[in-house]
Amino acid sequence: MGAIRLGILGYGNLGKGVELAVRQNDDIELVAVYSRRNPSSVKIATEGVPVKSAETLESGEEPLDVLVICGGSATDLPKQTPHYAALYNVVDSFDTHAHIPEHFAAVDEAAQAAGNTALISCGWDPGLFSLNRLMGNCILPQGADYTFWGKGISQGHSDAVRRIPGVADAKQYTIPVESALEEVRAGNNPELTTRQKHLRECFVVLEDGADAAEVERQIVTMPNYFDEYDTTVHFISQEELDRDHSAMPHGGFVLRSGESAAGSKMIIEYSLKLDSNPEFTACVLVAYARAVARFAAEGKSGAITVFDVPPAYLSALDGAELRAHML
Amino acid sequence: MGAIRLGILGYGNLGKGVELAVRQNDDIELVAVYSRRNPSSVKIATEGVPVKSAETLESGEEPLDVLVICGGSATDLPKQTPHYAALYNVVDSFDTHAHIPEHFAAVDEAAQAAGNTALISCGWDPGLFSLNRLMGNCILPQGADYTFWGKGISQGHSDAVRRIPGVADAKQYTIPVESALEEVRAGNNPELTTRQKHLRECFVVLEDGADAAEVERQIVTMPNYFDEYDTTVHFISQEELDRDHSAMPHGGFVLRSGESAAGSKMIIEYSLKLDSNPEFTACVLVAYARAVARFAAEGKSGAITVFDVPPAYLSALDGAELRAHML
Repeated sequence: MGAIRLGILGYGNLGKGVELAVRQNDDIELVAVYSRRNPSSVKIATEGVPVKSAETLESGEEPLDVLVICGGSATDLPKQTPHYAALYNVVDSFDTHAHIPEHFAAVDEAAQAAGNTALISCGWDPGLFSLNRLMGNCILPQGADYTFWGKGISQGHSDAVRRIPGVADAKQYTIPVESALEEVRAGNNPELTTRQKHLRECFVVLEDGADAAEVERQIVTMPNYFDEYDTTVHFISQEELDRDHSAMPHGGFVLRSGESAAGSKMIIEYSLKLDSNPEFTACVLVAYARAVARFAAEGKSGAITVFDVPPAYLSALDGAELRAHML
Repeated sequence: MGAIRLGILGYGNLGKGVELAVRQNDDIELVAVYSRRNPSSVKIATEGVPVKSAETLESGEEPLDVLVICGGSATDLPKQTPHYAALYNVVDSFDTHAHIPEHFAAVDEAAQAAGNTALISCGWDPGLFSLNRLMGNCILPQGADYTFWGKGISQGHSDAVRRIPGVADAKQYTIPVESALEEVRAGNNPELTTRQKHLRECFVVLEDGADAAEVERQIVTMPNYFDEYDTTVHFISQEELDRDHSAMPHGGFVLRSGESAAGSKMIIEYSLKLDSNPEFTACVLVAYARAVARFAAEGKSGAITVFDVPPAYLSALDGAELRAHML
């Protein structure tokens, strides 16, 4: 197989991350970035690679082994992934857990009809964390699951704070409670409430004349987002926010705490510590894009998830090399 | 598919662990334990399951979907796995990393000729740790790998101490150096010597009249096993050894410390903390036995490793259930 020809649809943080990740994989070649904006207004980092209008994809004739769809889960991907799965092999990072079954069904129908391979819900959660939940349950059927997120910026919670009147800008960090993590690691299988698992910390820039106490009250009492958590609010300047909170770190922990039928305790822990959430998600998407290209070359059609991918398919090395050096 | 019919060959610590693990998996049924000893001398824990002579397997007619071969890697498995792969679908835990390619080739030839599926080198290292090394390398191609083992009992090192004249009994613990782990977690990508990664701690029972100082000298200077490590030796009574050091705990850590093409640091960490090494290894073997039964039902033949197994194959649940609840 020659180089895998990859296209990026959407040039936001995730699309830029995919562009970076392609550079680290010699067997993958970036063919083009496709944008819904005016292509001439989109400047990409890679020299010699064209930016094309998303319209160009409609022909189904773009020379792509796989199209990585970098839209958002709320409104973009539910439309985009089924649409483009009818034209190309695709990968997306659809992350609205509750709607995965219907997204899978829509993408599967389109991909099957067209004879394409479509991997949905790839990244780290859903994605690598899901793999660890699945494998933990299969290996230790008797046990408890724990997922902690953070420390990292939650986009949804940051947006919610920014919508409060009087707030000019804001970032929200989700922070796992260290003592809860330690109790899980000790094998105590605690029953943890929402409040016991995560803290929330907000950095808020007020508009001129806004009432800090009232803004804080609205944040900490906000239903679903904050009321079930212990939340700390810091008021800072826009300069401080830009200087200290512009990065997009994230991460988290998946633990399976189980025991054998003889009562021996076993703990499996998986964790990620990421300076850049979108850049890491992109690294995962590109590794799985390789698997999609391989499935497609084998004639596989329909939707798949990370659960369906043999780990060897993520690698450019062949089976003999993997067994000799990685097993 | 009805219950998966599983047989166990060899009833040592690992075979007993497989028997325990089968009890936790409703879709798997233990058909028989096969032993090279006189079957009437082998008492197993499960009522109503026969112990049969290993000779019985030679007919190729035992009603097994998969045979889990629980022999040792030094002398048993290189002969047993190719032999039985010609008769049944099999799983083994061959763990001599340097000889995996030749073991794979021998098993593959036998399994292909017979149309059976044979999964080799399953467990946690090789096995789950290998998966994490592979995936870490695929997702973060630019980075460094670290594997730490322990705290846990090393059978090979315990045996080596027991062979020293004057030693009546002994157990050896391999212990990861916490400060080295922390340096890796901090993203410093340190170059670590053997001595900087692990400590060794020995609990030794002397024979009457043995020279403690001489035994200690022989331990800490033993080539390959101890000379490159900082080793602590404790002399204790047989009663203390039996009381405090009879369990078989183990575990370890696999880390991939990498960065994106933009220089953002990313750390993936996987760890196991196991009260019983053989019981956990057995849990992994039984989950993968399910995958072998499924591959065999699909008509797959030849040798495979954990790298070739889609994670969904480890589960008794179907794809829709997995996507709805685990993704």
